[in-house]
Amino acid sequence: MSERRLLPLLDAPPPERRDAARNRVALLDAAARLVAQHGATGVTMDAVAAEAGVGKGTVFRRFQSREGLMGALLNHSETDWQASVMSGPPPLGPGAEPWDRLLEFGRSRLETTLLHAELIRAAGRAGTRSYAAYSFSVLHVRYLLHELGVTGDLPLLAVALLAPLEAPVLDQQVSVDGFHRERVYAGWVDLAGRIVGR
Amino acid sequence: MSERRLLPLLDAPPPERRDAARNRVALLDAAARLVAQHGATGVTMDAVAAEAGVGKGTVFRRFQSREGLMGALLNHSETDWQASVMSGPPPLGPGAEPWDRLLEFGRSRLETTLLHAELIRAAGRAGTRSYAAYSFSVLHVRYLLHELGVTGDLPLLAVALLAPLEAPVLDQQVSVDGFHRERVYAGWVDLAGRIVGR
Repeated sequence: MSERRLLPLLDAPPPERRDAARNRVALLDAAARLVAQHGATGVTMDAVAAEAGVGKGTVFRRFQSREGLMGALLNHSETDWQASVMSGPPPLGPGAEPWDRLLEFGRSRLETTLLHAELIRAAGRAGTRSYAAYSFSVLHVRYLLHELGVTGDLPLLAVALLAPLEAPVLDQQVSVDGFHRERVYAGWVDLAGRIVGR
Repeated sequence: MSERRLLPLLDAPPPERRDAARNRVALLDAAARLVAQHGATGVTMDAVAAEAGVGKGTVFRRFQSREGLMGALLNHSETDWQASVMSGPPPLGPGAEPWDRLLEFGRSRLETTLLHAELIRAAGRAGTRSYAAYSFSVLHVRYLLHELGVTGDLPLLAVALLAPLEAPVLDQQVSVDGFHRERVYAGWVDLAGRIVGR
């Protein structure tokens, strides 16, 4: 994962010295690998230290607590995802047809949101929602709808496409109602088709 | 407002004696009138006592704190709204065409959600979301979509219609982005038309 920061995130830390930033990214990458393998609930400060090959004290000095680490991981992951949308490979990034970009946007946002719902819980930030991250998504979907020739109140249609991908909604469908995420994604593609008119 | 309780709400209190229930409803109705006039932030325990014609001690004994009162008001208002949908006058209640019921459902849900966003903040329940209330809405919209002859994964299409009416989304559009609520409602009607295919 890279440390490109395209849009300022809420709670973004002040600029860091280059070596400090490199260490920070190494720790976050280690934590991200562990989350991918074991889920957020299974990740301890000890395990992150071992995975990154540093002492546990280093991890605590950097992030204060497990909640602090999860919060930093959340911001890091969101920034990374935004970078992929803006300048990553197609079809999520530029260079693909707008319809294909929209479908890939929906899939990647769904996966990212479900991961983030877990991190938000682990970070102890119940109900947290980054307006900056949300605004980024609204602008991007609005741009794709325009490229697709959709007419109407595009900012509101963009919100209509994004709202079912918000963490509380997705989390209920997948964790409470027990819908498979492929079914949820198929439903979102159907919604996108109805909104775009294809 | 009536005390009909059609669906159990999360955090619903145990059954009460008839006179206790009557006093409780009188206090909640007084609080609701004050919220309608001054907004949730302007309502104090003193003002509710004065409006209901009781001593301040009665209000505190009943609800413990201003947060407790706002939480009770939230449940009361949600229950009342559900009763209107299930058995109130048309077009929100039964007896109107399903399309007209859907449009009125959207309008009343938008108003109710914006009121509840205020109560949720005043109740100090950041991020609170009643799954029971949400499930009620999903079932109702799913029923209306079926009546309208919509084909597809109806539970997911119902969620797509409800997600833009969730408190954090609406609250951002109205309070942060400064969209007029009539514009937000017009956008929702457009969305409903695209989903229903009319």
